[in-house]
Amino acid sequence: MSGALATDGRRRRGDRTRTAILDRAVRIASTEGLQSLTLGQVAAESGVAKTSVSALFKGKLGLQLRTLDAAVELFVSEVVRPHESLVSPRARLAAWCDAWFNYVEGRILPGGCLVTAAASEYRARPGVIQRAVRSHREAWRRLLLAAAEQAAAAGELTNVDAGQLVFEILAFQAVANCASLLGDADDFARARSACEARLAA
Amino acid sequence: MSGALATDGRRRRGDRTRTAILDRAVRIASTEGLQSLTLGQVAAESGVAKTSVSALFKGKLGLQLRTLDAAVELFVSEVVRPHESLVSPRARLAAWCDAWFNYVEGRILPGGCLVTAAASEYRARPGVIQRAVRSHREAWRRLLLAAAEQAAAAGELTNVDAGQLVFEILAFQAVANCASLLGDADDFARARSACEARLAA
Repeated sequence: MSGALATDGRRRRGDRTRTAILDRAVRIASTEGLQSLTLGQVAAESGVAKTSVSALFKGKLGLQLRTLDAAVELFVSEVVRPHESLVSPRARLAAWCDAWFNYVEGRILPGGCLVTAAASEYRARPGVIQRAVRSHREAWRRLLLAAAEQAAAAGELTNVDAGQLVFEILAFQAVANCASLLGDADDFARARSACEARLAA
Repeated sequence: MSGALATDGRRRRGDRTRTAILDRAVRIASTEGLQSLTLGQVAAESGVAKTSVSALFKGKLGLQLRTLDAAVELFVSEVVRPHESLVSPRARLAAWCDAWFNYVEGRILPGGCLVTAAASEYRARPGVIQRAVRSHREAWRRLLLAAAEQAAAAGELTNVDAGQLVFEILAFQAVANCASLLGDADDFARARSACEARLAA
């Protein structure tokens, strides 16, 4: 019994360490890129031995993949979940777009939206990280697309090609993710109002 | 006299070496990012000693900045210059957009448009490279904007806000630069036809 309790204690401490490391790693990756993430920098910034970080995540690739997952979990909890129960599909789509811009503008991560950035960073680097990035990107697209199609079917959006609408939203987000951090407030505002205009149509 | 000739010969060889190194560096940076460029990899791939590469470019930062310049020169010679003498500003704008998509689709660089990618890569990394990237990006925007404003003034484009038009073109290029390399042919085609539709209006 005390053996099991000791094991539980070790597991809880291990989970806390893991969470603290990923919290640092997500912030580093959001500004410097997932490829620039190193076991050494993450270890130093989270105050854990490099060998422990490597063992916990099974090396650099494991750390990169878990960092991407952690960024997506944060995004889901900040952007997706608060609005997923909205009944009107157009209102849900508009709320998700608005929340995306708030997430980037509010620097929930210092580098904005990590999946948007990683789609550019890994566009020409085939492999397991590129596949993971594509899969997260497609999940976000499917979410928006389903809402757009439901809104069209319900007559909330008229004369709209749902696929084209979601493509344009993703294009405006791609440029806004750069503009926000490059201090280009005009482009960020244009992107936000272009999304709003599409959804008001 | 022979001393001057020998100096000229050394300079020509130096220029050829420099050009050969930058040619490799531009290709590496286009897929792996400007930040991932290392003196060691560039030296190995161009068959020049690392100390020579470092001396020629005054270190990694110098190599990164000259690599960005070389990518822009290539872009100007492939995309901008062939169409800059078109008299109709709308035709010029359309030709530049078309040439941009051909440049990315034709893999003139294996990673597509380096400035578009670098705007994302350096969005959250203030410094001399970010300033250079912004300046190249703004030069491309000004070129498109001047043509759009001239087209509007000449009545070739009607009911068009030139700033909004160019913003949307840059957004479609941002998403197309990822889509092309991630194998997402639908998004690339959508981006291209969205630009064409805006310019046909």
